[in-house]
Amino acid sequence: MVKLLFVNPNTSVSITDRIAAAARQAAAPGTVITFETAPHGVPYIATRAEAVVGAQVALEMLAEHQAGHDAAVIAAFGDPGLGGARELLSIPVIGLAEAAMLTACMLGRRFAVVSFASALGPWYRECVEYHGLSGRLAGIRLLEGGFRSIGDVQEEKEDLLVELARQAVQRDEADVIVLAGAPLAGLAGRVADRIPVPVVDGVAAAVKQAEALAALRPRKATEGTFRKPARKPTDGVAPALRRLMSGGN
Amino acid sequence: MVKLLFVNPNTSVSITDRIAAAARQAAAPGTVITFETAPHGVPYIATRAEAVVGAQVALEMLAEHQAGHDAAVIAAFGDPGLGGARELLSIPVIGLAEAAMLTACMLGRRFAVVSFASALGPWYRECVEYHGLSGRLAGIRLLEGGFRSIGDVQEEKEDLLVELARQAVQRDEADVIVLAGAPLAGLAGRVADRIPVPVVDGVAAAVKQAEALAALRPRKATEGTFRKPARKPTDGVAPALRRLMSGGN
Amino acid sequence: MVKLLFVNPNTSVSITDRIAAAARQAAAPGTVITFETAPHGVPYIATRAEAVVGAQVALEMLAEHQAGHDAAVIAAFGDPGLGGARELLSIPVIGLAEAAMLTACMLGRRFAVVSFASALGPWYRECVEYHGLSGRLAGIRLLEGGFRSIGDVQEEKEDLLVELARQAVQRDEADVIVLAGAPLAGLAGRVADRIPVPVVDGVAAAVKQAEALAALRPRKATEGTFRKPARKPTDGVAPALRRLMSGGN
Amino acid sequence: MVKLLFVNPNTSVSITDRIAAAARQAAAPGTVITFETAPHGVPYIATRAEAVVGAQVALEMLAEHQAGHDAAVIAAFGDPGLGGARELLSIPVIGLAEAAMLTACMLGRRFAVVSFASALGPWYRECVEYHGLSGRLAGIRLLEGGFRSIGDVQEEKEDLLVELARQAVQRDEADVIVLAGAPLAGLAGRVADRIPVPVVDGVAAAVKQAEALAALRPRKATEGTFRKPARKPTDGVAPALRRLMSGGN
Amino acid sequence: MVKLLFVNPNTSVSITDRIAAAARQAAAPGTVITFETAPHGVPYIATRAEAVVGAQVALEMLAEHQAGHDAAVIAAFGDPGLGGARELLSIPVIGLAEAAMLTACMLGRRFAVVSFASALGPWYRECVEYHGLSGRLAGIRLLEGGFRSIGDVQEEKEDLLVELARQAVQRDEADVIVLAGAPLAGLAGRVADRIPVPVVDGVAAAVKQAEALAALRPRKATEGTFRKPARKPTDGVAPALRRLMSGGN
Amino acid sequence: MVKLLFVNPNTSVSITDRIAAAARQAAAPGTVITFETAPHGVPYIATRAEAVVGAQVALEMLAEHQAGHDAAVIAAFGDPGLGGARELLSIPVIGLAEAAMLTACMLGRRFAVVSFASALGPWYRECVEYHGLSGRLAGIRLLEGGFRSIGDVQEEKEDLLVELARQAVQRDEADVIVLAGAPLAGLAGRVADRIPVPVVDGVAAAVKQAEALAALRPRKATEGTFRKPARKPTDGVAPALRRLMSGGN
Repeated sequence: MVKLLFVNPNTSVSITDRIAAAARQAAAPGTVITFETAPHGVPYIATRAEAVVGAQVALEMLAEHQAGHDAAVIAAFGDPGLGGARELLSIPVIGLAEAAMLTACMLGRRFAVVSFASALGPWYRECVEYHGLSGRLAGIRLLEGGFRSIGDVQEEKEDLLVELARQAVQRDEADVIVLAGAPLAGLAGRVADRIPVPVVDGVAAAVKQAEALAALRPRKATEGTFRKPARKPTDGVAPALRRLMSGGN
Repeated sequence: MVKLLFVNPNTSVSITDRIAAAARQAAAPGTVITFETAPHGVPYIATRAEAVVGAQVALEMLAEHQAGHDAAVIAAFGDPGLGGARELLSIPVIGLAEAAMLTACMLGRRFAVVSFASALGPWYRECVEYHGLSGRLAGIRLLEGGFRSIGDVQEEKEDLLVELARQAVQRDEADVIVLAGAPLAGLAGRVADRIPVPVVDGVAAAVKQAEALAALRPRKATEGTFRKPARKPTDGVAPALRRLMSGGN
Repeated sequence: MVKLLFVNPNTSVSITDRIAAAARQAAAPGTVITFETAPHGVPYIATRAEAVVGAQVALEMLAEHQAGHDAAVIAAFGDPGLGGARELLSIPVIGLAEAAMLTACMLGRRFAVVSFASALGPWYRECVEYHGLSGRLAGIRLLEGGFRSIGDVQEEKEDLLVELARQAVQRDEADVIVLAGAPLAGLAGRVADRIPVPVVDGVAAAVKQAEALAALRPRKATEGTFRKPARKPTDGVAPALRRLMSGGN
Repeated sequence: MVKLLFVNPNTSVSITDRIAAAARQAAAPGTVITFETAPHGVPYIATRAEAVVGAQVALEMLAEHQAGHDAAVIAAFGDPGLGGARELLSIPVIGLAEAAMLTACMLGRRFAVVSFASALGPWYRECVEYHGLSGRLAGIRLLEGGFRSIGDVQEEKEDLLVELARQAVQRDEADVIVLAGAPLAGLAGRVADRIPVPVVDGVAAAVKQAEALAALRPRKATEGTFRKPARKPTDGVAPALRRLMSGGN
Repeated sequence: MVKLLFVNPNTSVSITDRIAAAARQAAAPGTVITFETAPHGVPYIATRAEAVVGAQVALEMLAEHQAGHDAAVIAAFGDPGLGGARELLSIPVIGLAEAAMLTACMLGRRFAVVSFASALGPWYRECVEYHGLSGRLAGIRLLEGGFRSIGDVQEEKEDLLVELARQAVQRDEADVIVLAGAPLAGLAGRVADRIPVPVVDGVAAAVKQAEALAALRPRKATEGTFRKPARKPTDGVAPALRRLMSGGN
Repeated sequence: MVKLLFVNPNTSVSITDRIAAAARQAAAPGTVITFETAPHGVPYIATRAEAVVGAQVALEMLAEHQAGHDAAVIAAFGDPGLGGARELLSIPVIGLAEAAMLTACMLGRRFAVVSFASALGPWYRECVEYHGLSGRLAGIRLLEGGFRSIGDVQEEKEDLLVELARQAVQRDEADVIVLAGAPLAGLAGRVADRIPVPVVDGVAAAVKQAEALAALRPRKATEGTFRKPARKPTDGVAPALRRLMSGGN
């Protein structure tokens, strides 16, 4: 049995529900997944500033809930806190964007990121750059205009997102579509046959990649840049993270 | 049940045996893997010229044996023929190097490629560049000097390879080690605790990535650069590939 | 009169003292600088995980103390929280690393980053990449070994740092040396004549760049990726940041 | 007298005829050129899979016909098999795309690749990347729609190709146009005065570059990545290539 | 008191007047600026060839007028002669483009260069590449069509330039606008409130950066690539430059 | 008959003599070459400042002597004035470095630049970057220490240069050696059999590339970034260049 931990650094339970539904559908028979919603922060992360808050809460949630899991996923597309989490934890940690993009790389040469709100653009672009994958990016295409509710945005915008994905294929030479953002979890399966190239769902990709890493059982680095940082007195963070970082109690 | 096809574009059965042993150990319970050894070509691919021959035989083997499988792996580190295979087949196809490097990206920031023969360097470097991952590469470190037998090179060179991996960590700032080349299949597991960062075995990574892609069931592109090429009269290749490319019989 | 705000996202008052001394020496006659030390977090940020915590506290400090200032500086070398701060605030915000590196670009073609602890390497490298300046980087050279106290590390390691800087000039073709890390604030002035190329002190550079930006009085973006984010209910952060992000009270 | 070998890895004699006509017009008085058409493979290479087949047949043709020549050209735009050929042969070997692009670099800053079929795009783009020339590429512009016959496509599409070239100049800031693909051999001369920047014909460029390299008489590498590979038993390839690779008979 | 030298490598006094007006407005109270107009060369530099001439006259002017100044500015957007000036002089020398672009980097992530004549495009693009800032460039947008007089082009084209800047924000995702070219000096202040992101005036940015560098008092390199070149007999240049380069009289 | 113009922007006749000897040896039977030595400037260009002076004199020499030639070469390794010359002239113009590096690209994957004086390093590196070929560069290796006379440096340093070239092959993975700098003209032929990879002589490469371009008879651009610049009143340059730039007399 493989035990995965998904931490949603957004405070919206409706997003966690979307994530959970998509994740369970993607999980292998022996996989058990714990889902946690951010106890504080913002309803859904869309900007650099919100990602700062999301990064800390992601570390706090991982510190608190990691025990007993084989791998963990930071379940927001920009992967807030990912590098820090990978330093602190002894189990593999991956991000939703990372899992989606690396999976997309195996399905074609250039992928496009498609999502529902133009506000997400800069954060997503910086995320692609952070992972060193700009050379594989065909483009980022985002819907203009607002939406009614983050929990239902995927139904409300379904047709427009399909159209956007098609444009990415026809105008940007995308070989693969990444439907980005936790609120779109599960949409890929519903629209795959209306888009003429493979479509990657970040949540499903993260489940499979986390299962893969868990199975490989990589050791924790004891040297190099992801060895566990030396412990330092730390405060102002949630107790579990404080313990993890400061070795105190 | 997931059915995977591993084609070894080298003609050495001893390499296929190494691959098979490592793959079976990495496979999930419900995974069944078929292993095929190249019916012609070279004993083990180490140069650009040999990779040209290996690329065609890889396509021929995939064309002949793909039926009934859910995903396929080109089981040589430089991924000969990968782009073409991805055009021709309707199931996902991945390469050993690709699977190893993308897996390594999820375990750290920079990976080093470590292998047993300096002749492999240029081909491996071009492979990293082809995948657009040069920005994630800490370096390529290869043993100097010859070896007794390709089938036993991993035992013969084990200590030297461990030392090389340590150098990559300490001098090149590698966060992850990729033990490259099918002849090293299975070595990672044996030496992991002597190398202070995660070690990726290409064969094990390929099994997990192929399982992941098979589970995601991505559609075959009908547009974009990986749609199936228009059929053209083709000859001088093995019958199954000829049929696949030329639509004749 | 120009009013600058320096927020030190480290909790060490001794580091703030170093920063303040170096900043006051660099400031123009009419410049008044407020210095704030992080009320919580870690003594000095050295890793990605600590930078996550530092990023949030930096935003919290900026939100609380920005009123009445003309420009602000995040006074830690990796610039934690910089992108988010630039979204949220209406005054210019710069980072210590950013100011140092851009200033160095005007004094030569390639700069080297020199600092006192090897643990800082990965975070600094990611910072250079984030700013898109890898093409101008000659290298990062860091001292091995521990140190007695973060407050006095610059005196303890002065000779070794000078030697490291010389190596960067002679072996890495560096045209300019950036002495990196707030704990080294003020050292550049003391050692400049022992290093054969220009030496940039991050704190001094930040003072001059903040003065420059304050004088230019750039408008706050109302479009593009640094417009102020739409307000969202936010909790779990310090009150001033909460008000700034959520528009509540 | 200089003796050049042009191997057309396509099986279409009509393409070889086009190549030969353009090559003879470009050749210096003392240059003698041998033209060979692929004995098997595909009528004209347009995709990655077809390039795999073309690469092997290119090596086979070079192995069989190289004797007595001073330099050789792989006369298909994507340069199939180029790296391998450069390892195996002792005379210089260049590719059509390589010769065209490097020549274009000497006539301006950014070149555009213009050709007759959108299917060629991905293969051409990977070719530009392989040669490390993406920074000099203004863009790739390809005609949509089918054509009647590969042998006459240059007459059928002449006006459309001229229009496409003009668009590359006016919209993509191209300083030079590369008319790409062996089927367009000779077109450049006919349309040069209707396109407002220099136009490079791949075949003519390859003749001049092959003459240049032949005159320089560079030595065969005995070290480095293009030294002749160690011989290995090889089968399943044409006899001459088998001999060259395996040292057998 | 800080003394700055601005050399305008264009021969148009009307451009120097524009520069002087904008520079004086940006200067700090204690800053005194000397302005020099090129004694020969071209009215305004717009092409690579004109930049060659402008580069030499820039060095000649700097050599003749540098005495008694604390920093110098080459006041043409493409920074003609910048690298050479930085070698020869002992005071800091910066270029208009360099100062504008580095300042823009501190105000957002991606900047657009906007100017009044399409002829400037290639020279500006090469300038961005020279400074290693292509990764921060959102795009270059230039007006088509001629203009009446270089001295009044900023009034004549004001509305069109504002419109172009808006397009750069909305279509190219520019976070900051750089109004490029000495003839536009001073325009930024007039139009800033009609453009929804920060606007950088090259002259104002150069004043502030020159003041900043003068205040930091960096030492002249005695090693590395910007140490003063060994003196060589030089003729055919203006007397002061001849003396500086040849050590003669 | 092909008529080539070589302009040596150095004032050393001994360098022109070296260039002429090497060029005549490389020239095809029907090629006639005119050699011109700079009438003013510096004895040999080694720094950015000297390259500024060399760039203008190169344009002046090309303007004065171009009549009746089919192609021209700027015969100094850093290609001073190349972009401007390509704008102004109607015949092809190439640089020594450009010709050498592009020729090297056809002989291997990565080339090393080897020369006789460390002062040349920065100028050469910027030249490689300018041509967009950094991805093909294995490294730059330069001799330390002075030399007796620029005219005889190749004899004095022959053994050391051979050793440096071997290091580039063995330590930097260079596939090709470029012996850089006009003072080394002709050396490649003498040492080729002591260096285990192809060696490119810049002068010989330039002759062959100039012959190639002359034979291709590319049209002068009338649009795009290398169209002839609009004429402007220009003074302070040699009469022929003044006429060419200003259209006056």
